[in-house]
Amino acid sequence: MTHQHGVVRPGHLQLRVLEMQPALDHYLGVVGLLETGRDDQGRVYLKAWDEHDWFSLVLREAESPGMDHFAFRVSDAATLRSLGQSITAWGLPTELIPAGELRHVGERLSFVVPTGHRIELFAEKDKFGNGLPLLNPDVVAPGLKGMRPSRLDHCLVWGDEIQATADFFQQVLGFGLSEQILAGEGGEMIGAFLTRTNKPHDIAFIKADGKNWFHHVGFYVDSIDDMRAGNDLIAVHEIPVEYNGRHGITRGHTTYFFDPSGNRNEIFHGGYIYYPDHPTLTWTDPEKGIFYYGRKMIDSFMTAHT
Amino acid sequence: MTHQHGVVRPGHLQLRVLEMQPALDHYLGVVGLLETGRDDQGRVYLKAWDEHDWFSLVLREAESPGMDHFAFRVSDAATLRSLGQSITAWGLPTELIPAGELRHVGERLSFVVPTGHRIELFAEKDKFGNGLPLLNPDVVAPGLKGMRPSRLDHCLVWGDEIQATADFFQQVLGFGLSEQILAGEGGEMIGAFLTRTNKPHDIAFIKADGKNWFHHVGFYVDSIDDMRAGNDLIAVHEIPVEYNGRHGITRGHTTYFFDPSGNRNEIFHGGYIYYPDHPTLTWTDPEKGIFYYGRKMIDSFMTAHT
Amino acid sequence: MTHQHGVVRPGHLQLRVLEMQPALDHYLGVVGLLETGRDDQGRVYLKAWDEHDWFSLVLREAESPGMDHFAFRVSDAATLRSLGQSITAWGLPTELIPAGELRHVGERLSFVVPTGHRIELFAEKDKFGNGLPLLNPDVVAPGLKGMRPSRLDHCLVWGDEIQATADFFQQVLGFGLSEQILAGEGGEMIGAFLTRTNKPHDIAFIKADGKNWFHHVGFYVDSIDDMRAGNDLIAVHEIPVEYNGRHGITRGHTTYFFDPSGNRNEIFHGGYIYYPDHPTLTWTDPEKGIFYYGRKMIDSFMTAHT
Amino acid sequence: MTHQHGVVRPGHLQLRVLEMQPALDHYLGVVGLLETGRDDQGRVYLKAWDEHDWFSLVLREAESPGMDHFAFRVSDAATLRSLGQSITAWGLPTELIPAGELRHVGERLSFVVPTGHRIELFAEKDKFGNGLPLLNPDVVAPGLKGMRPSRLDHCLVWGDEIQATADFFQQVLGFGLSEQILAGEGGEMIGAFLTRTNKPHDIAFIKADGKNWFHHVGFYVDSIDDMRAGNDLIAVHEIPVEYNGRHGITRGHTTYFFDPSGNRNEIFHGGYIYYPDHPTLTWTDPEKGIFYYGRKMIDSFMTAHT
Repeated sequence: MTHQHGVVRPGHLQLRVLEMQPALDHYLGVVGLLETGRDDQGRVYLKAWDEHDWFSLVLREAESPGMDHFAFRVSDAATLRSLGQSITAWGLPTELIPAGELRHVGERLSFVVPTGHRIELFAEKDKFGNGLPLLNPDVVAPGLKGMRPSRLDHCLVWGDEIQATADFFQQVLGFGLSEQILAGEGGEMIGAFLTRTNKPHDIAFIKADGKNWFHHVGFYVDSIDDMRAGNDLIAVHEIPVEYNGRHGITRGHTTYFFDPSGNRNEIFHGGYIYYPDHPTLTWTDPEKGIFYYGRKMIDSFMTAHT
Repeated sequence: MTHQHGVVRPGHLQLRVLEMQPALDHYLGVVGLLETGRDDQGRVYLKAWDEHDWFSLVLREAESPGMDHFAFRVSDAATLRSLGQSITAWGLPTELIPAGELRHVGERLSFVVPTGHRIELFAEKDKFGNGLPLLNPDVVAPGLKGMRPSRLDHCLVWGDEIQATADFFQQVLGFGLSEQILAGEGGEMIGAFLTRTNKPHDIAFIKADGKNWFHHVGFYVDSIDDMRAGNDLIAVHEIPVEYNGRHGITRGHTTYFFDPSGNRNEIFHGGYIYYPDHPTLTWTDPEKGIFYYGRKMIDSFMTAHT
Repeated sequence: MTHQHGVVRPGHLQLRVLEMQPALDHYLGVVGLLETGRDDQGRVYLKAWDEHDWFSLVLREAESPGMDHFAFRVSDAATLRSLGQSITAWGLPTELIPAGELRHVGERLSFVVPTGHRIELFAEKDKFGNGLPLLNPDVVAPGLKGMRPSRLDHCLVWGDEIQATADFFQQVLGFGLSEQILAGEGGEMIGAFLTRTNKPHDIAFIKADGKNWFHHVGFYVDSIDDMRAGNDLIAVHEIPVEYNGRHGITRGHTTYFFDPSGNRNEIFHGGYIYYPDHPTLTWTDPEKGIFYYGRKMIDSFMTAHT
Repeated sequence: MTHQHGVVRPGHLQLRVLEMQPALDHYLGVVGLLETGRDDQGRVYLKAWDEHDWFSLVLREAESPGMDHFAFRVSDAATLRSLGQSITAWGLPTELIPAGELRHVGERLSFVVPTGHRIELFAEKDKFGNGLPLLNPDVVAPGLKGMRPSRLDHCLVWGDEIQATADFFQQVLGFGLSEQILAGEGGEMIGAFLTRTNKPHDIAFIKADGKNWFHHVGFYVDSIDDMRAGNDLIAVHEIPVEYNGRHGITRGHTTYFFDPSGNRNEIFHGGYIYYPDHPTLTWTDPEKGIFYYGRKMIDSFMTAHT
C-alpha cells in the first residue's frame, strides 16, 4: 500500500504488433527497452530502465496493430474494489481478470471508457528493479542501449465522446484535467489531457470519427540532448518520422516515429510540473498546441492510427 | 478542492534576511524571482516564474538569518481541520494563524516538528498566474531574468530527532520516504528525504547537534544548460559557491551558493520521478550521496547553517 | 597582420531588406544582434555579441531582398594585393572599393564568382570588441537578448557553375572542399561546401537555374539548448519556419526561418571540426544530407530564395 | 598537401604509463578511445572516434608516467624541412626521426622547447577513418563507448621559460597567443595559451620550478550533456577527480581526473572560436581564469604533475 490513495500512476500498455521479431528489434534494439519475460501466449514483457515494475509494455502478436489496454496502478486492493463499485455506478460494466493472466500482476479490473478504449486497474505487480542497488546506488544503470528512455510516460488515443470520457476520469478516477482542446471558444471538447501524477499528462484523448483508435505511446528521455540522440538513432535506422519539435500542450519536446507494425511512438522530454490545483489550460488553436514548432497541422497526425 | 487529498505539495518558505535590499538584489536580480507584493510588516513576497500561486518565498528582515517556517498546501479546508486533529493526536501542539496574516493566504495550521522546525499547512492561496494566458499559451513567459528558476522546489533543514520527524511526515502527513541516510547499515537514521509529490524530495532533514537549523532552499531550473547559465551568473556576480556537481541522493544536478545574509541557496535540476510505490533508497556513504562528483565531504556543508 | 596567411575567415554579409524598421525588429529584437552604427546611405551595421569586429551584417534598404556581397578577411594588405593578381589571372575582373565606403573597413577587393555572387576581400576592419574586457574577462557579455548568436557563421547561396566556383575557391583562395553534392556518383557537382577555417563551411553553393540567388545566412548559437530557446522565440514571434532538425552535411543542428523581407535565416549549432587534411565527403542523397531528420525534401527549400 | 601552410593542427601525444593493462582499461574502457594498433616496442596506438588519423595517443609502458612528446601535423614535407631550418636558426637543435619509428607516420622533426618539453612535427600520417563512410555518412559512428570524446583536443604542460617558449611558438611555428597569464599587470608571463587552429588552445604552458612537467591532456566531448555523462562515468568508476566546472580561460567546460598512472586527463567542451586576429586576453587572476566556478585555487592543480 502506498501513501497516495486511489489511482497512483500509469502501469503498462499492451500493444499488438504484426510480427514479434521486427517489433523486438525496434523496441529493444532501437528504443532501448529491456526484455524481462515472455508468457505461454507468446507475449513479451518489456520495461524502461528506470522503472521498478516488472514491465510497462506488453507486446502481443496479432493480425492488426493497436492497443489492447492501458493499465493504471491503484494504491491497494481495497481501493481496487471500491473503484470497481464507483465505475459500475457510473455506468460502465467491469470485468475482473484473475491474477497471473499477465505474469507478475495481481487481479485486474477491466472496463471500456466511452471513447471505446479498454482501461485496466491493478493494485499489485512484482518489482524487477531498475538495475541499481537500493544501497548507495549510482545515478545510472550500466549497459543501457538505444534511446535509453527512463519510463513509459503516457499514451494518447483517439475516439468519440471525449467529454464523457474526461468526466469519467475526473469524477470517478480522480484525475486532473491539465489541458483541453475545444472546437472554438465555448465549443465542444475535442481533446482532453488527464493526469493523476505531477506529469502534464498520463493519458490523453482526441476526438475521432470512430472508437478505440490508438495514436501513440510516449517514452520519456531525460534531456534535450537525449532527444537529439534519439533523433539521430531514428535517422541512422531510417525509421519513418512524422514530426520532431515541441508541443505547446504539455510544453514537451517530442519526436513521433513508427514501429514496424505502424504503431506510433513518441520520445518525449520536459513538460511542466502539474500540481493538482493548476488551472486547466484551453486550446482553440490545435496547430499551435500540437506542432508548436512549425505551427502547421501534419496530415498524417490526423489520419494515421492503429 | 483538488483531486488529490491530503497534503498536495510545497507552498512557500518564509526566510529571514539581515537587510532587505541586498536580499532583493540577490533573489530578484540574480536568482531571478519576481516580486509580487509587500505587507505592512515589510515582508516581501516573491515567486518563481512558472508558479501559479501568489508567492512561494517570503523575505522578512530580522537580526539573524534562517527559516521562519516551510508551508505545504493541503487539498481543502476540511482536510486542513482533520490533519490538525491528527497532528495534535500525534502529540504536536498546533496553532491556527488567521487568514490574511500572510497576504493572499487563508487560515494556516502551524506546528513544530521534533527537529525544531516550524511547518505550516494551508488550503487556500490566491493565484497570481505564471505570466502566460490560460488560452493557447506560449511555452515560456516573456521577460525572464537571472537564473529563471521555474519553481521553489524543496528545502533541506538540519536538526536532531530525524527518525521521529520522518515518522511524523510519513504517518500523519502521508509523505513517502524516498531516501534515507543511516549511520552505518542498520544504524540510526541521520537523513530523511520526504516527498508528497512525484519529485524525489519536497523536504529533507539531516542530523545535527541542535534544533531548527536551516541548510538550504532549492530552486528548480529546467535543463543542464540552465544549470550552466546559473553557474555563470554566480561567477559573474562573485557570489560564494560551495559545490557544483551532482547528488547521488535524488540524482539531482546541484549548485550550492549563498545569499548576502548567509542563507544557502541551491539551483537544482533533474532527479528521478518518484512514484509512491518506489522503494526507499538507503545511504551509508553520505559523501557519495551528497557529493557524487568529487566524493569528498565539503566541510562547510556540515557546519554552515542559518 | 595575423599569423595565418591568405584568406582568414568570413567577415561580413551585406543584405538587402525591403523596409529597415521591420528588419531591425527582427535582427535586433528576435535574432539578438547588436547595432553598432549607421551610415549616410542609411545602411545599418550589426554584429553578433562574441565578434570583435565592428560588424558582420550590413542591412541596406532596397526594392528587392537578397545579398549584395559576402566578404572575407585576409591576413594583410600585401596579401590582398597578391590575391587580386591571382584572381585576375584566373579570369575574374576585380574592382577596388576605397576604404571607408563601408565604415570602419579598409580597401575592399570585389569580384563576381561564376555562380554570379559578389565576393569581397578586405584586410582591415576596426574592432568593436565583444563586450568583455581583455583583462580577466567573464565568460559571457551582460545584457544579451533574443537568440544570442555568438557569430555570423556562414552563408549558402545558389547559382549555376558550381564546379568552376568551387575550383576558384580552392585554387585561388585556398579553401578546402569539406563536402560536395553530386548528381549521382561520378556525376556533376551540384553542391560545394567550402571552408578556410576549422568550421565545416564558411560558404556553400548549390546548383540553381539562375545566378546570384541568396539562400540563407547562418548564425551560430552555442548549445542545443540555445537551439531550443531560438526555436521557442521563433514560435513566440510567429515567424515562418521552414525546417528544424539536423543536417547530415556538416552534422549541424539547424532551424530555417525567414526575416520580414523573405530572406532566409538559419540558427546553427555544432558541426564537426574541419582540419585541412580531412577527406572531402560526398553526397548523392541530398535529402539525407540536408534534412537528416525527416529525410524528405521540403519544396520551399528548393524554390524560396532572394 | 593541405590548403593551409605551416603547422596545421595537433597530431598526437606519446604518454608514459606504469602498467599497460590498467591504462588500457582506463583509456579504452572509461575514456572511450579506440585501439588501432600496437608496435614491437609494446606501444599501443589509440584514437578518438571522429579523428581520421591512425592515432592521436600513443601509450608507452615506462617506470615513470608523463609525456614523451607532443606532435603537430604540418602541411607538407617541404614545409617540414623549411621549419627545421627556422627552428635551428632560432637556436633549438633538431633531430630527424625516420619514417615508421611510429607506425603509420612519416619522418618526424623533433626538438626540445625552452620549458623542457619535446615537440615534434610530421607531414604524413596514414588515415584510419572515423568509422563513417565518405559517401552519404550518418552523423555518428556506431558502437561508441565510454565518454565518446570526438578528438584529442590539446595538452597543457608546466615548465620554466614560458616567455621564450611562447615567443618560439609564435615567431617560428606561427601560433597565435590566445591568452596569457601574467604575474600581475605588466609582470612576467607565467602562462601561455597557444593555437594554430580556431580552437582557443592547441597547447598551453604554465610556469613551474622545473622543466618538462606534464599537467594534462584534454579530450573533447560534444555537448554539456556529454560532460555530464563523462562526470557520471568518472563517479561510477570511482576515479579520482580534481575539479569539475568551467574555465575563464578558453571559456571551456572542464573536468580534471587521473589515469591509473597519475597522468591528469581532462574532458573539455566548448570554448570560443579563435580567429587569428583575435586580441590576446590577459589574466592576472589565475583563480578566476582556471577555476571560474568556485574561484579558489585547488592545491593539487599546482603540485600534481607527471
